[in-house]
Formats: sequence, structure tokens, C-alpha cells
Amino acid sequence: MTLGFGVVGTGAIGREHIQRITKVVSGAEIAAVTDVNQDAAKKAVEDFNLRASIYEDDTALLKDENVEAVLVTSWGPAHESTVLKAVEAGKFVFVEKPLATTAEGCMRIVEAEQKHGKRLVQVGFMRRYDSGYRQMKEAIDNNFIGEPLMIRCAHRNREVGESYTQDMAILDTLIHEIDTLHWLVGDDYKSIQVTYPKKTKNALEHLKDPQIVTLETKTGIIIHAEIFVNCQFGYDIQCEVIGEEGIVKLPEVATAQYRKDGVLGSGILQDWQSRFNDAFNNEFQDFIDAVRREGQPQGPSAWDGYIAAVTGDAGVKAQQSGQAEPIELPERPDFYQQKKQEEKV
Amino acid sequence: MTLGFGVVGTGAIGREHIQRITKVVSGAEIAAVTDVNQDAAKKAVEDFNLRASIYEDDTALLKDENVEAVLVTSWGPAHESTVLKAVEAGKFVFVEKPLATTAEGCMRIVEAEQKHGKRLVQVGFMRRYDSGYRQMKEAIDNNFIGEPLMIRCAHRNREVGESYTQDMAILDTLIHEIDTLHWLVGDDYKSIQVTYPKKTKNALEHLKDPQIVTLETKTGIIIHAEIFVNCQFGYDIQCEVIGEEGIVKLPEVATAQYRKDGVLGSGILQDWQSRFNDAFNNEFQDFIDAVRREGQPQGPSAWDGYIAAVTGDAGVKAQQSGQAEPIELPERPDFYQQKKQEEKV
Amino acid sequence: MTLGFGVVGTGAIGREHIQRITKVVSGAEIAAVTDVNQDAAKKAVEDFNLRASIYEDDTALLKDENVEAVLVTSWGPAHESTVLKAVEAGKFVFVEKPLATTAEGCMRIVEAEQKHGKRLVQVGFMRRYDSGYRQMKEAIDNNFIGEPLMIRCAHRNREVGESYTQDMAILDTLIHEIDTLHWLVGDDYKSIQVTYPKKTKNALEHLKDPQIVTLETKTGIIIHAEIFVNCQFGYDIQCEVIGEEGIVKLPEVATAQYRKDGVLGSGILQDWQSRFNDAFNNEFQDFIDAVRREGQPQGPSAWDGYIAAVTGDAGVKAQQSGQAEPIELPERPDFYQQKKQEEKV
Amino acid sequence: MTLGFGVVGTGAIGREHIQRITKVVSGAEIAAVTDVNQDAAKKAVEDFNLRASIYEDDTALLKDENVEAVLVTSWGPAHESTVLKAVEAGKFVFVEKPLATTAEGCMRIVEAEQKHGKRLVQVGFMRRYDSGYRQMKEAIDNNFIGEPLMIRCAHRNREVGESYTQDMAILDTLIHEIDTLHWLVGDDYKSIQVTYPKKTKNALEHLKDPQIVTLETKTGIIIHAEIFVNCQFGYDIQCEVIGEEGIVKLPEVATAQYRKDGVLGSGILQDWQSRFNDAFNNEFQDFIDAVRREGQPQGPSAWDGYIAAVTGDAGVKAQQSGQAEPIELPERPDFYQQKKQEEKV
Ligand SMILES: [Mg+2]
Ligand SMILES: [Mg+2]
Ligand SMILES: [Mg+2]
Ligand SMILES: [Mg+2]
Repeated sequence: MTLGFGVVGTGAIGREHIQRITKVVSGAEIAAVTDVNQDAAKKAVEDFNLRASIYEDDTALLKDENVEAVLVTSWGPAHESTVLKAVEAGKFVFVEKPLATTAEGCMRIVEAEQKHGKRLVQVGFMRRYDSGYRQMKEAIDNNFIGEPLMIRCAHRNREVGESYTQDMAILDTLIHEIDTLHWLVGDDYKSIQVTYPKKTKNALEHLKDPQIVTLETKTGIIIHAEIFVNCQFGYDIQCEVIGEEGIVKLPEVATAQYRKDGVLGSGILQDWQSRFNDAFNNEFQDFIDAVRREGQPQGPSAWDGYIAAVTGDAGVKAQQSGQAEPIELPERPDFYQQKKQEEKV
Repeated sequence: MTLGFGVVGTGAIGREHIQRITKVVSGAEIAAVTDVNQDAAKKAVEDFNLRASIYEDDTALLKDENVEAVLVTSWGPAHESTVLKAVEAGKFVFVEKPLATTAEGCMRIVEAEQKHGKRLVQVGFMRRYDSGYRQMKEAIDNNFIGEPLMIRCAHRNREVGESYTQDMAILDTLIHEIDTLHWLVGDDYKSIQVTYPKKTKNALEHLKDPQIVTLETKTGIIIHAEIFVNCQFGYDIQCEVIGEEGIVKLPEVATAQYRKDGVLGSGILQDWQSRFNDAFNNEFQDFIDAVRREGQPQGPSAWDGYIAAVTGDAGVKAQQSGQAEPIELPERPDFYQQKKQEEKV
Repeated sequence: MTLGFGVVGTGAIGREHIQRITKVVSGAEIAAVTDVNQDAAKKAVEDFNLRASIYEDDTALLKDENVEAVLVTSWGPAHESTVLKAVEAGKFVFVEKPLATTAEGCMRIVEAEQKHGKRLVQVGFMRRYDSGYRQMKEAIDNNFIGEPLMIRCAHRNREVGESYTQDMAILDTLIHEIDTLHWLVGDDYKSIQVTYPKKTKNALEHLKDPQIVTLETKTGIIIHAEIFVNCQFGYDIQCEVIGEEGIVKLPEVATAQYRKDGVLGSGILQDWQSRFNDAFNNEFQDFIDAVRREGQPQGPSAWDGYIAAVTGDAGVKAQQSGQAEPIELPERPDFYQQKKQEEKV
Repeated sequence: MTLGFGVVGTGAIGREHIQRITKVVSGAEIAAVTDVNQDAAKKAVEDFNLRASIYEDDTALLKDENVEAVLVTSWGPAHESTVLKAVEAGKFVFVEKPLATTAEGCMRIVEAEQKHGKRLVQVGFMRRYDSGYRQMKEAIDNNFIGEPLMIRCAHRNREVGESYTQDMAILDTLIHEIDTLHWLVGDDYKSIQVTYPKKTKNALEHLKDPQIVTLETKTGIIIHAEIFVNCQFGYDIQCEVIGEEGIVKLPEVATAQYRKDGVLGSGILQDWQSRFNDAFNNEFQDFIDAVRREGQPQGPSAWDGYIAAVTGDAGVKAQQSGQAEPIELPERPDFYQQKKQEEKV
């Protein structure tokens, strides 16, 4: 009954999810692990006291019949290969973003999955599991604000280090908005443009920060997304959808309100881990439950991973060109048709 | 057409109201001034560049036919005598609280005014002119929350000096809640009790601070009012009325919201002047307009001043006894029947 | 490694916790069940597809060595006996409130546990696991607001049915505040008084609603707690601690903000299940983790259950007498000394 | 001492300001009126019971030596001529927007005023007198948020009628943001672009609604301003400035908070009159005071009117072209150098 996970990649994020699966959520266990660094794999087994087999590589791990689902948390360039092998083996897959590093790679997975005949793959976009976004989704699906016309959102980090490069603003930061927003309004993207306001003195020399991304959808919704990764004051995610009949907005995080020293205030979280911890837990519980009960995952699909890849590529191009770059997506296959999701959170 | 004020008392509060009448609101001017300290009277005339006669005392001032309304801002013990003389002379009166220092004194004014035959006197309770309280009043009058059952309120000052004595918590601080709350719910008080929580270390030795006052009305509404005059963080007025069908609450003051250094905050005002500045202006404009247009003031009446005096006396007794002290008020005379006030703010 | 629970009582709340243990949190399973209604026990096993033994009674269940912890969710009068047997058998206990229906009964458990030599028992007061209360606790423990002087809180339900009796306002409703508040400020209660405002027309005839409870602590903190179980508008928990240097307040629940039809609004939850769902999950995860890792629970203790019983009894007496009733608690035994809890949520 | 106004134009807005000058603010009176419709002029004098001369036209009115300041509230195309005559006559001018209907017309006024040698003209941009904007201005001037990098704002009306044309979105609606935002950050505009999201079904056929305006300043601040004049839910003005060290945001209007029927809500105002009533009052009081005390107005200047005209023209062009249109402004003359304004509100 318990879902056996095989973990491919026991680095930081892999360990975090092992912790989540073994200590927080219900209904799964780690059956096997592998890592290009075998010592890391062994250390994970010891540190978390796992009853798990250690394999040389993903191919070997996938042969273990106790492995019913593969958790892909290796580095990005390795994702595609592992996911394809897993799909071929008919195993469930939870793969951290990116699904693959190229749109073509994502498409290969999409095709393999369709050939398999039912969904196996879920991509790790956790925001859809955030209570605030789900409330927004519910309001929009219930037509509470009428047709969505515009979206204003912001993704702010306190600061980033030297390793954070220009394209990461799209591929690592905005990628979450990319996934969440089309899901929120049930629409597809048509174009993306990036503009650069005055640069903050708090960004390192190599980085333009902040950036403003304009996305337009096929039905004409205009989205302005601020990316500001050296905002200094904290980790702050904002999202507001303006519709024909009203507006719905992501709630502020519920931190205790105080009055002190002339200020009516409340704390702003400082990192994404605390902001989305519940979402991560919900995400894994949902994956485990859906797989065990329905025989297929119901979260972000390989198609969603493909959308993210195509949109991300256009976004990076737009960073360079300064123009509105087209986002060319084929028709969504019936296989991946989004049902209006029932609220589970 | 312009209403001529005769000012009795040109101390701090008198000067503030002279400023208001001459520089802020419309339709009035200062026609005459007097003060026990004649130099203060002269200085006010000079400082504000008034075309106003200076009189030796209130009796002389009242004989000036340019004085249509008397502004009584002398020290408390002198109020009654001036107000009585003014009423006798048929002049309008705006008297700062207290109307008189004793309930008997207030009653003498009430009786004199009724004998005169129409309202002349308004007592300086400005909160009824605050936009937030007026919105609450409107909601309650419109039955938006059903019958009021309970009130929770707080009156907090940043700090007070040595001259602030125990009874001032009732007679100077709570007095505003005393006036506002019975007006808000259209009810009369039945009893008052004072309890003392643990004392803050930030209060001077002679003062018990905070204090909690429990008022009960004739229809059974229970009011808990916190008085906390060394709260450190600012000047803060809270009021919430809990009714059968809902709750209505005084809005927080609209200060700009910011995000900085891990805080989502906004400023808390530090003094009552900034908190109630608009209310003071509205109060004077309404007095001037009502007197000029209706021939009588429509704000807090001599009867309201009497209620405050009786309730204040019982409150001071309750501070000492620790018991619930009865508040014995005669039936409100028809003369002072409160009309559901139209919103003017 | 997995903690085996034996469930005593498979009614509504028992089933809810079985669901939580098997489907939501990590590290435990249901090893055995019993219920005075054997059919209910069987049905639970079937419905949740448990691999659990079914026993005739708690005595039999406690002999099962797979039962490491007992979940006591029988009706209140049966709690004491089961808990005592479990403690005697050296098994861990998670007992829903009340620990026992009398203070004497609670004391017998306290004594048995001390005799056993280390903590075995946790009482199901879940609010300590609510993120908002934990933030308040952290602020208070860090001296952010200085010494607490007053607490204002409210416990509001949309409505209650005929079976809700007067004493339940204390024993079922206020009981959560009773547990939470002394924990929050690290103090003990000295007295309790109940007063009755004007009754809402929306309460059934037999019930006085709302009620206001005044609690005083040994160090002099005064607490006003409103109980209003037919407030009509939703389920609403408020709590504000006023300290020497500032105030800290429970955050409003983070529901999506909207603008529509002239209203800037957000939804109020309608039931305690949605309000405290996360707290319940945290509560069970903490119990399971603490027992597995530390060998003893660290949540609300038998002593806390005893405090609740003594305070609840005084509260019911106070409902009848109208007086401030003393709350007589012996010194807290060293065994139950509260450590400043590290924040785990 | 009292400032004598000559009113040119006694239509709706003229009457509103007459009311304000005579009934609300202090220190001014209406000395003369004129209107192309002489009956309207007479009616205004009667309705407001003015002691004012009625003139045939502005030329005649300007000869009246009791007219110290001219209030220009005629229709837009007549503004320039009246203002120029008034400046020539050395009279103070309060002119409702637009200063003139063309940039060239505004420039002629600018030149005439400079030739006169000191400021005479104030343009009726009232938002600078709104308490919320002034708090933001103060925060920005005090470097509380560091260098401003981006601005997000919205101007929403419940609905507009048939007479509202496409260009009015710029010239009547956005014009307020145009004036306020450059003042707020002390910068000049460089370009303006207009994009059209999906149109709301609630707009009439001839109107594209909503519109999004992108303004860029000379130092590189990017501004996104939403114009949505059929938003259905009320009149709603939003403004947020994102800086290097933090964010400051216009406060929500302080309306009473309620809990009812599952909603935690507060009212949204429905029209600009109630939203900016205080700002209008402050604006006139400041004009009167500055003119009387300093001998020149200190509010929005003829130069600000010129900026609005140039920017408005570029905006209308941008509505048609879909491109970013340059905003070409000459260097601001020393004569119009903005002092960091002291807060007076
Ligand atoms: Mg993820
Ligand atoms: Mg006053
Ligand atoms: Mg519980
Ligand atoms: Mg204006």
C-alpha cells in the first residue's frame, strides 16, 4: 500500500524531499536511491535511517520492483534521460523543475507519456498547492470576478549571490509564475517581453535587477510580472487578477500583527522555504494520494513542463532582444486537457 | 452672516480653537476675547491678528452684541458660571469639556437651557465628528449589525507626565468614550466598574496604569474599555461593537503601507491632535453651520455633558471602591431627545 | 519504527484522527481499535482499510504489544479509566479533552504519571500548534512586548444547536482559551467570573449567549474572553495580548482578498475544522515525533488537563454565582515544569 | 485680508468650488462671477447668497479690484485666454485642468508668468493634497525606500457613459497620475506607451477598456498605470512605489471594518468626490494661504500644466500608434524648480 520512491539525486533538494516523504507526509517510503556521487547516496540512507537499496545509476534503480515512483532531483541536464527511462518502464515520476532543459526534450517526454497511454509524470511546480493560489483559482473558476483581463504579480527575493545569472531570472525565478498563471486563468501564452527599469545599486554588476516581464495570453490577458531578486526587505510573492466584475488577490502571509514603537506591523518571511513549505507538503501528499488512489498523478503535467520550457526559452530570448517574442505552442493534446480541478487543500 | 465668537480663555486650547476658527473653517470670526490673564488675551489678539475687542471678564464680553456665540475654553471650574451667564443672555455656547465640574452644575445648565426654550449649548466632544465613528454610527442606525450586545474599546496614550492623576483616567481620558459610546448605540449607562490589571513598569509611581472599565447600559450592553496611558507605542483608539448579526469596527488610521527590513508596516500616530484633527474641524464647522442655518447647535448637548458628569463621578467612585457603581440618570427630557443624526461628514 | 496506535473510541472524532494518522501525518499506524459499539470498531477498520486488531475493550487492547500509544477518543466519562490503565501499562496516551471529567480524576492521572516517572500523556489541546498562536508565544517569550498585562480574546461560532447547554460554553468552548492563554503567558489562573450581556435573539431559549468571561492570573494579568456561539457570521477566533512595550495579535486567517460590488473583503471561515486543520496535523505529527525521538510527548500535559478541569469547574460555578470564583491550583510540580518551547512549526 | 475670488465659469465644477470657498475653507470670498451663460452666473450668486458682482466676461471681471485671484472653471478651450489675461493683469489664478488645451498654449502661459516675474498660477491637480500621497512623498523624499525604480498604479472608475471617449482615458483620467507621479519621484517623463488587454464586456462599443499605460522617466523608472473605467466595483485609486530599499503604498481608504455573513470587509467608495473631498479642501486652503502669506501659490504650477499637456498629447498619440512615443520636454526652468515641499497637510 505504501508507495515506494526511488530517488535519483541526493543533493540538497533531494534530501529535503526525502525528509518530507519520510517525516512529514503519509503513504510513501524511500525504497531506493542513487546519485552520481555514491557517497552522497550512502550518506542520505544513513542520515535518514532509510531501508533503501543504493544503486549505481538510474537504470539499475528502475529495475527494482519496489520502486513504484521515481523522484528526479538530479541536476537539470540529467532530468530528461531519467524521466524517459522511467516512463518507458511504466513508473510514476515526480521530477523537479525543469522537466528537461530544452523544449524538444520536454516534447520527447510528452510523446513518450502519450504513447504509454496514461499520465505518469508530475513536475514540481508547487505553487498550485499553495492555499492562497487555490483560493484565487476557485474564485476565478467560479466566475466570481468574471473574465480575467489583467494580472499584476511580483516575485521578490531579499538578495541573490554571484552565481545567479541573468537568464535565471526567467528560468529559475519567473518559471514559477509561468506555470502558475496559465493554470490560474486557463489560458495559453502568446508572447513575452522583458523591460529593464533603473537598476538597483544592490544588485551585483553582472545582473540587471529588477526586470519587468510582460506576458500576453491567447485570449488577450496582459500580465505584468516584476522580478526583483535583490529587494532587500524579504521574500515576497504578490499576485492579483483583475477581471470584468472584480479583483482577486493573493492574501498576505498570516503573520502575527503587532503594535510597537510607532509601527502597526507584521513580519515578512525571508525565504521561499518558509513561504511555500505547506505547498510542498500538499504537493507531495497529493502526488502520493493520486498515484495510489487514481493510478495517475493529477498535478502539473509533462505538458505543463513543456509550456514552461517553451515560454522560458522565449523569455531568455526576450531578455536579449528587448522585443515581444512569440511563444509558439501547439494545441494542447486532449490527453493533457485540464479538468477544472476540485479543491483539495 | 459671519458668526461672531467671544472667546473666554486664551490658553493653549483656546488658541488652538482661535486658529481653527480663523484659519481653517468657514463662516465665523473672533469678535471678542477675555482671559483672567489679560496679557494672554492681548497676545492672542496680536498673534492671530484679530479684529477683536478685549474684555475684562466674561460678563463684559457677553454684553458685546458682536458676540453671538461664546467659546468657553477657560479652566474647568470656571465653565459653569460662564455658560449660565451666556445662556441667560441667549447666546450660543461652545464649551470645551467639562460642561461643569459637577453633575449639579451641569443640571443647572440643562435647566437654564430648557427654560430658555431652545438649544444653545454644544459640548466639545469631537469624536462624534470623526469619520470612522460616524461610519460605525451609520451602520448601527441602519441595523447592519442588528442589536448591539457588547463593545470593546481602548484608549491608549504613548505616555503621561507627573501631573496626570488617577481620576484623570476617567475624567480626561475615558470621558471621550463615555460620550461617544452611549451616542453610538443610543442607550444610557446603568453602572460602571474599574479593575486594575498588573501595572506597567512604565507608569509613574502614583498612577495605576492600565485600567479596565466595565460599563453596562440600561438595555444590557456590556462595554469593556481599556485605558492605557503609558502604552509606549503611540496614540491608539480602538472601538468595536459586536451585534446580533455582525460586528463593526473603527478603521485603523490610513497611513501609508510600506515593506522594509522584513516588516510589512504602517505608522501609528503619536498624539491625539493628529488623530482627531479632522474631527475638530468638522466639529467647529458643524457648530457654525448649524447655528447659522438652524438657529441651534446639533452636536453634543448640555444633557450629554450632564451624562458625562454623572458617569464620570460614578467612575471615580468606582476607581476607589472596586465595585460596580450605579449610574443614576433621570429620564432624558424630550427637549434633548436624540434624533437619528443624518450623516454630514 | 512506525508508532502503533490503539484507538479507544471510533466515533466521529476517533474516525477523524484515524484518517489523520493514516492519510496525512507521518510515522504512525493504527494497530488496534475498540469501541463500546463493536460494529463501529469493525466499520472503522473496513472504511479505512486498516490492518488493525479489533478488541472488546480497552483492557484487552492495552495488552496488544503492537499498541505503543493509545488514542483516547471515547466519550468523556470513560477517559479517566482508560488513561489510568494505559499509564499503568506504560503506554503513551493521546487523549482528547477532557483528560477526565473531574479535577480529582485528572489529579489521579497526574499522580499515576509521576509515579511512572516520565511523561506519557498528551491532552488534545491543538491551539498550541496553530501557527498564529506560536508566533504570539514566540514574541512573548522573546520579550518583544514586555510583560503581558491584559488579554482580549473572542471565541465565536456561527451557531449551535439544542444540545449545546450553558455549561458547554465553559467546558467545550472556553476550554480552548483556558488551555492556550496560561501557556501563552506562562502564568496560572487565580479567579474566573462570568457576566451576561444582552442576549442575542439568535440563541435558543435555554442558552445565555453571548457570555463574557473575566480571568485573572496570579501575577495580575486580566483576561476578557468573549464567548459568542450564535454570532451568525462565521467561526472566528481572536486573541490579543497587551504588554508593557507593545501588543501582539493573532493574525486574521489568510483568505484571498477581493474587490467586488463596493466591498473590499475576504472570506471568514465557517467552522473550526477548517480553522484548525493545520494545527491538528501539527499536533499529531509532534506527538508521534516526540514519542519516537524523545521517548515522551512534549505537548499539553496531564497537568494542563488538570488546570483545565479545575478552571472549568470554577467557570461553571461562576456562571451560576455571578461572582469571581477562586481557582485553586497547587504549585505546579517540577515534573511538569514548562520549558520555554522551541518553535517547531 | 480675505482673498477675493473672481469666478470665470459657474457650471457644475465652478459651483462646487464656490461652495468650497464660501462654506468650507477659510480666508476667501467670492467677489465677482462671470459665465458665458449670464443666467448661470446670476443663479450662482443667488443660490450661494454671494455679495459678488456679475460681469459680462472675464475681461470685465479682471478689472474689478476686489478680484485678487481668478478661479478658472470655464470649459477647457477657454482656459488659456482667461489665464493669459489674468497673468497680464498680475492676478493670481487657480485654473482647473487643463491649463490650456494645447502644449503651445500652456507654454504661452509659462512664458507670460516668467515675464511677470513670480508665480501667479496654480493648476487644479488635487492629488498632491491627498494625505496618502503626501505620506508617500514624504517617505520618498526622506529616502525611506531608497531610489525609486518602478511604480504600479491603477485608476478605476465604476463605469462611464457614452460621452466618455477613448482619448479621455488619457486626458481626463490618467492626467491625474501624470501630474502626481513625476511630482512624487521628482523626475521627468521620457516616453509613453499604451497597450490594450482583453476588453471588458461592460464597456460600451466605442471604448477600449481597460488600458495599460507604460511611462518611462528620464532616470529609468518604469511606471505601469492601469486605467479601467468600467471596473464595476467602485472608484479605486492604487499607487505603489518600489524602491531600492523598500516599497511604499497608498493606504486603502479608512472605511469601517465589519464582519457579517461570512465576510470580513469594508466599503469601497463609489466616486471621486468622496475619495478626494479632503484633498480638494486642502488644495484650496493651501492656495488661499500661500497667496495671502507668501504672495504666490506653491501648488502645481503652470510648468506642471505644461508637462501634463505634453505628456497627454504623447499619450493620445500612443493610444493610436501602439508604440512608445517620446515625451519631449525642455529643461525645467529655474523659475519652476521644485523645492522639496514641506508637509502641510
Ligand atoms: Mg517545486
Ligand atoms: Mg473636544
Ligand atoms: Mg483538540
Ligand atoms: Mg482638480
